[in-house]
Amino acid sequence: MLGDEEARHLTRVLRLDVGAVVAVFDGRGREFHAVVAAIGKHQVELEVGEPKVPAPEARIAIELLQAVLKGDKMDDVVRDAVMIGVAAIQPVVTARAEVSLATLQRARRRERWERIAIAAAKQCGRAVVPPVREPVDVALLIGAAADATVPESRVMLVEPGASAGATPLSGLDPAAPSQASLLIGPEGGWTSDEVAAAAASWRLVTMGGRTLRADAMATIAVAALFTKWGEL
Amino acid sequence: MLGDEEARHLTRVLRLDVGAVVAVFDGRGREFHAVVAAIGKHQVELEVGEPKVPAPEARIAIELLQAVLKGDKMDDVVRDAVMIGVAAIQPVVTARAEVSLATLQRARRRERWERIAIAAAKQCGRAVVPPVREPVDVALLIGAAADATVPESRVMLVEPGASAGATPLSGLDPAAPSQASLLIGPEGGWTSDEVAAAAASWRLVTMGGRTLRADAMATIAVAALFTKWGEL
Repeated sequence: MLGDEEARHLTRVLRLDVGAVVAVFDGRGREFHAVVAAIGKHQVELEVGEPKVPAPEARIAIELLQAVLKGDKMDDVVRDAVMIGVAAIQPVVTARAEVSLATLQRARRRERWERIAIAAAKQCGRAVVPPVREPVDVALLIGAAADATVPESRVMLVEPGASAGATPLSGLDPAAPSQASLLIGPEGGWTSDEVAAAAASWRLVTMGGRTLRADAMATIAVAALFTKWGEL
Repeated sequence: MLGDEEARHLTRVLRLDVGAVVAVFDGRGREFHAVVAAIGKHQVELEVGEPKVPAPEARIAIELLQAVLKGDKMDDVVRDAVMIGVAAIQPVVTARAEVSLATLQRARRRERWERIAIAAAKQCGRAVVPPVREPVDVALLIGAAADATVPESRVMLVEPGASAGATPLSGLDPAAPSQASLLIGPEGGWTSDEVAAAAASWRLVTMGGRTLRADAMATIAVAALFTKWGEL
């Protein structure tokens, strides 16, 4: 049974009728062939059939922790991150993010990013929709008690010269972790306070000496980590 | 001495006056501090001073051979390819590119992409502007006589399942070449004829099992190759 919005999309936009064959997925990795069985005013009944083979999920589950970008640039980041294959998206509010948690909540931005994640998963053939988590303040992520040793799989991307403790991506252990976290800053970059606070619990990593667009960083960095760890 | 367009930008858009300090670069790797010495009606005279230190160039010179994409998507590809650090851009017309060489020439698209490359180089701190070559037909690239052995540095990106001879990116030799070519198809992908013809002279490579946006492929693939070869 499809709800109002999906049913309207199916009957008004796609103009499908009873008997049409569609694909449905449950958002947790399974996709099915289905046939439109009945069309009501606010809902559509589907007869669900055989499971389909979806695009494979990445073996390495990367959680993208992305500073919220200006305007609707975050929409593109969410879409491309889902398509390249991240496991989860955690929006982060930082000193230079120029937006507050309250504003994000009032504008229901997380709900918007969730809809974008669903559309992107459909488009790229993934049957798993990565969750878009409730935005958090960066202090919650970097203010945690320092670990004895920082795991190589907790990567914070910093600009060249941001910290003496930063290493190029090529310095990471090529042995693939089963999961990793990738923390990426906003257009204006991290403040020196943020970098200093994070150094105890994150591996500070640089990627080349050229400036890249903030909204292109996530896909580039995920592609680089996937390559480093043999996923691509 | 600056010509008409740059002079107008400097005086009308940036509203700089005599005495203002600017940076100029010669497009071949050198950047200089300069002072506005005199402003004429159609030109501006600069006093050129000390050289600046630009962003480092990549050690591996990757030539991006990109199928022309629809609308202005190619503009974004050129911009991001320059920012991530390719050495040259070769636009390619393919069977599914939906544009002809004559149309590209009539619309002076190469000149447009050159201007975008210059702007992107400025923005990311590169003093070298990668050349944007005259568009060519893909047959010229893939119809060449087959080499005895295809070098690992001639990479043609293909979809998973496009060819039995394709290998994942992880299968490439990690030893970094000094230069490489990267051939990327259009939105609709390569035809099976194109893939078959290219197999003799290009290394067919796949990147993961998920569908990616055509206009995001170039930066993702360059990032992956740079990572594979220790450049990032």
